[in-house]
Amino acid sequence: MKALVYHGPGKKSWEEKERPKIIDATDVIVRITKTTICGTDLHIMKGDVTEVKNGRTLGHEGIGVIDEAGGAVKRFKKGDQVLISCITSCGTCEQCKRGMYSHCEYGGWLLGHLIDGTQAEYVRIPFADTSLYHAPGGVNEDALVMLSDIFPTGFECGVLNGRVKPGDTVAIAGAGPIGLAALLTARFYSPSELIMIDVDDERLRKARGLGATQTINMTGVDAVKRVMELTDNRGVDVAIEAVGVPVTFEICEDIIAAGGHIANIGVFGEKVDLHMEKLWSQNITITTRLVDTVTTPMLLKSVESGNLHPEELVTHHFPLGEILKAYDTFSHAKEEKAIKVVLENR
Amino acid sequence: MKALVYHGPGKKSWEEKERPKIIDATDVIVRITKTTICGTDLHIMKGDVTEVKNGRTLGHEGIGVIDEAGGAVKRFKKGDQVLISCITSCGTCEQCKRGMYSHCEYGGWLLGHLIDGTQAEYVRIPFADTSLYHAPGGVNEDALVMLSDIFPTGFECGVLNGRVKPGDTVAIAGAGPIGLAALLTARFYSPSELIMIDVDDERLRKARGLGATQTINMTGVDAVKRVMELTDNRGVDVAIEAVGVPVTFEICEDIIAAGGHIANIGVFGEKVDLHMEKLWSQNITITTRLVDTVTTPMLLKSVESGNLHPEELVTHHFPLGEILKAYDTFSHAKEEKAIKVVLENR
Amino acid sequence: MKALVYHGPGKKSWEEKERPKIIDATDVIVRITKTTICGTDLHIMKGDVTEVKNGRTLGHEGIGVIDEAGGAVKRFKKGDQVLISCITSCGTCEQCKRGMYSHCEYGGWLLGHLIDGTQAEYVRIPFADTSLYHAPGGVNEDALVMLSDIFPTGFECGVLNGRVKPGDTVAIAGAGPIGLAALLTARFYSPSELIMIDVDDERLRKARGLGATQTINMTGVDAVKRVMELTDNRGVDVAIEAVGVPVTFEICEDIIAAGGHIANIGVFGEKVDLHMEKLWSQNITITTRLVDTVTTPMLLKSVESGNLHPEELVTHHFPLGEILKAYDTFSHAKEEKAIKVVLENR
Amino acid sequence: MKALVYHGPGKKSWEEKERPKIIDATDVIVRITKTTICGTDLHIMKGDVTEVKNGRTLGHEGIGVIDEAGGAVKRFKKGDQVLISCITSCGTCEQCKRGMYSHCEYGGWLLGHLIDGTQAEYVRIPFADTSLYHAPGGVNEDALVMLSDIFPTGFECGVLNGRVKPGDTVAIAGAGPIGLAALLTARFYSPSELIMIDVDDERLRKARGLGATQTINMTGVDAVKRVMELTDNRGVDVAIEAVGVPVTFEICEDIIAAGGHIANIGVFGEKVDLHMEKLWSQNITITTRLVDTVTTPMLLKSVESGNLHPEELVTHHFPLGEILKAYDTFSHAKEEKAIKVVLENR
Repeated sequence: MKALVYHGPGKKSWEEKERPKIIDATDVIVRITKTTICGTDLHIMKGDVTEVKNGRTLGHEGIGVIDEAGGAVKRFKKGDQVLISCITSCGTCEQCKRGMYSHCEYGGWLLGHLIDGTQAEYVRIPFADTSLYHAPGGVNEDALVMLSDIFPTGFECGVLNGRVKPGDTVAIAGAGPIGLAALLTARFYSPSELIMIDVDDERLRKARGLGATQTINMTGVDAVKRVMELTDNRGVDVAIEAVGVPVTFEICEDIIAAGGHIANIGVFGEKVDLHMEKLWSQNITITTRLVDTVTTPMLLKSVESGNLHPEELVTHHFPLGEILKAYDTFSHAKEEKAIKVVLENR
Repeated sequence: MKALVYHGPGKKSWEEKERPKIIDATDVIVRITKTTICGTDLHIMKGDVTEVKNGRTLGHEGIGVIDEAGGAVKRFKKGDQVLISCITSCGTCEQCKRGMYSHCEYGGWLLGHLIDGTQAEYVRIPFADTSLYHAPGGVNEDALVMLSDIFPTGFECGVLNGRVKPGDTVAIAGAGPIGLAALLTARFYSPSELIMIDVDDERLRKARGLGATQTINMTGVDAVKRVMELTDNRGVDVAIEAVGVPVTFEICEDIIAAGGHIANIGVFGEKVDLHMEKLWSQNITITTRLVDTVTTPMLLKSVESGNLHPEELVTHHFPLGEILKAYDTFSHAKEEKAIKVVLENR
Repeated sequence: MKALVYHGPGKKSWEEKERPKIIDATDVIVRITKTTICGTDLHIMKGDVTEVKNGRTLGHEGIGVIDEAGGAVKRFKKGDQVLISCITSCGTCEQCKRGMYSHCEYGGWLLGHLIDGTQAEYVRIPFADTSLYHAPGGVNEDALVMLSDIFPTGFECGVLNGRVKPGDTVAIAGAGPIGLAALLTARFYSPSELIMIDVDDERLRKARGLGATQTINMTGVDAVKRVMELTDNRGVDVAIEAVGVPVTFEICEDIIAAGGHIANIGVFGEKVDLHMEKLWSQNITITTRLVDTVTTPMLLKSVESGNLHPEELVTHHFPLGEILKAYDTFSHAKEEKAIKVVLENR
Repeated sequence: MKALVYHGPGKKSWEEKERPKIIDATDVIVRITKTTICGTDLHIMKGDVTEVKNGRTLGHEGIGVIDEAGGAVKRFKKGDQVLISCITSCGTCEQCKRGMYSHCEYGGWLLGHLIDGTQAEYVRIPFADTSLYHAPGGVNEDALVMLSDIFPTGFECGVLNGRVKPGDTVAIAGAGPIGLAALLTARFYSPSELIMIDVDDERLRKARGLGATQTINMTGVDAVKRVMELTDNRGVDVAIEAVGVPVTFEICEDIIAAGGHIANIGVFGEKVDLHMEKLWSQNITITTRLVDTVTTPMLLKSVESGNLHPEELVTHHFPLGEILKAYDTFSHAKEEKAIKVVLENR
């Protein structure tokens, strides 16, 4: 079969590779029908994720069809249409039992990281019973691909941890795929204001189309001052960090109202300054989280009922065989006006 | 009357001062029977709290008897024994309505800060109906004095925000009055392990007597390493910061288990390094809080029922007229083996 | 002034009455600009609410302008536009402090019940600072009148107590004003299915227009069977009772899924059969509540932001002087296709 | 091997039976070392639980040693000491994923009910990875046997659902094994008052020894009146029903304070009268639950740390071969002063 294989920083190829086989009785093999590329994949290509070794097939998102199921798999059989979760969970360890699948003792983020991933014609999924979902029929397939990672991530790390509630004023720093997924799922709770902050006017325009009530291009603008103006100097109830750099984290520190929640989604490569000399008395909460994908069933229901349209984030489609071109497009997101690219294996 | 008056950094005197008068119809005048000195008072004396001006009577803790009640006061009358809350709350603003009295638009921390305080023979208490509590009869009076500030602070900022629950492993950095109050109230929730960290063996000995299951003197010891040994490298479910300096905050960052809670109580004068490059994926929560004193009624009930003995933190008693000597003792807490000192106005 | 006065079961008149005066310093007098009639007023007229005595002015909903403010009122002054809460709260008692204003020791449901109410040109409001809200400018006034009672009631007793969450299947028994208010506010949380059950096709048609995904006219239909069909025999996550009679309560018992919530809003005059022989093992929650009106500020924000349009429930308008005619219309809701009637005092 | 086998109402025998074998790869066979008898077993013997068929080995509690493990079992191996949960859970279905193991699509209460149980020398445990716990070393074995059912039941259905919190007044109707387990675990949260209600003075004496602050023998006494006297007519914050008959449920309805929680544990055979004409406005919560055993890990930690001593409920020991005699003793609990009897297989 063909797969997108990592060969060290800056090097990848679409190459022939042996088809994955069942290793444990709880595994399945999925034939990928659609997959996508994550910002994390670009980080891997830069060499930022050192656990990823030469020869690894990348990708942790996708949908497909069960091609073969191990003997201990109860809930899936050959031919089933499935959604692959970016987080693999054993379902039996202490962390899984508390719903913190991201820290599963035997799983966690494995695909395209510690084991071969989904940017290939076939992928092996361990612990299939607890790491896959039945794909409902009659639903937009692009929408489903978005549920592997970015929607549970935006929702769990941003919206749930931020405890967004009706009437709230919410700011989201970063209008990339994750920030926009947070925006769309924040709307589940009917906040009064949804302020998006980014450096790209095109993405902010998109955000307005998806329900942002205010947008701030922080290029050459004092974003903190602007948020304070918009909120009568009160600040925001919830600030969601969806970039992963100190400057946006500190904006969140500066705009959070007393009693508010800063919910971090961003993947950080360095420490940030936490201004405890100001925040110690402000009754705030700061949260971090690697997505647990515990809300995937709810997100599936919301897609089915028409309450959520994740496909609105898909800007480009490519045949799976043109994945190198898709990486190129996704790497130049601003110029290409790309948000999410979908690869199709027909 | 006599009062302990601040005259700028390093200068205070026990001096004659005009007795306070009712200003608003919602005020009462309380004759102080017992008061105490807080670590914050020492900070004020160093000049760290610049809002406190020359001429201010210090003190935000105490019990007493209503001497006069304004015309709009409904719940208290002359002669009532009362507990004074360190936080004054109007009971009608948006913040009070959500239970965040610390950020009351008309109140908050006023006593001994923005208005004259409790280290005096008489004190004026604004918004008496929502800022005082009836002192139950037959209860240790020293215990009550401890409920003005340190017990709600340790409990709300440390234990409640830390979401201590049965079976948890809890570490508390700082075995001063606030840390010990957090220790005693953490026990309300039956954690399995209570690890106290400090630099003073005497305080750690006290902590063991109050229920700590492990103590670590961090002088010349790697406290992080020791905590990880005690927890089989798992870390703690709850880390409570009760000092207010970067070194102990960073210990909390280093010992917190995935999914854990860091609850800050400490008053910080500077920023801290938040190691997001490690914490972003650890599903942790960090909270800050100025005490709201919303749990005072529950703490009173627990004292009455014998479930809580705050008087165990009182190490010294002085007549109110010897408050300068009491300050001296409290300022040399280590040498004097002082935790809380009580001033009595007979 | 003129007022709608109760003179015993079946007897009421629109008559001249002395204008209310300030009694306590925390009172205000409000000149009513708009009021409405509640189903509870019809119950009073039948003699079901025996605490209501001959001579009482009815009504507990409305908006108006402050005509006079007592000396201890801090937040309101003559000329302020206000929304009157159906629940009066002192803001200082134990129940108010825990946010259970409905059980305020000095307040609760007073207006048009234990003291004179809002169906008059003027009304006295005790504890004004904690029982009134500033009416935001530029907002539909009919919408505001709906926030005195039915929207906080539908939301707090039905939606919040039912813990409606994204993706849920929700059934509401009763499509009267309260049931429809529950429907509109349930949508704050983006449930997947909203099933309305009633006996009136016109109201069910209205419900569909307001967002119900399914409607069941239970006349001659087995509503339980129909709900089970609609839910693949799973039952509903949340069942909201908005009628107040045993038959609809028992429907809720029969359709609730394991782990689900039955949230009662209905005012009951008799006991119901609770089928514990079936429910003991079903992990369900049943709640009751007299509205606390703690969510009024959030509802106001949602009206201002355009997320909520309570005025959609207003079907009829009358001058205040024609209130007897309005009662007549409201009493024949089905024939008149009436949901809420608004009285205007110009 | 030998097993206690049900042969229809009133008929049971200790007889030779074929040793259980692994059926699914996720099964294990456990050699029982200790088991016990539940009130539910007595119900089965009366014929009340019609799903239990002739030939069924009874029992759903116990500890033992893994004798054989199926090929797909990851967490247990031959020789491991284990605690058996009364609830079997697959760990992969929708209900298990939300922590509601009691309603597991493939499991739930199976042992001694739908499949052969633990009152035997050997038992087959399906879904071993999610239905067993490693027994910690150095812990009282009787304590562990109590964690199979009665402690998670008393804690989850009574204490957690009742939301017992520090300072609360709690009443428990029923001082049998489950009621006493609720008592001991309610103490995790430091309530101020723990009132036990029963008809047996011996059990109430035991309750006092275990921490009840008040006891009421309801024989010939108006228990409701007595509770209201003890609570200054306020009622209780939490009422736990641990009997399963209408009379005690109605006591709970009558003593619950506004805003309080009625947590049902009792297994009911008939409906009860729910007095909605009184309760509709009282802001109460009523919960039901079949134990999910989600708190077993926490209970194990609490036993290990010495915060919980479940063995205090064990009054009698018998060799497993004398189980018929043990049933006899347990059936005459009052005369024998029996609470829990432990069977030992040496």
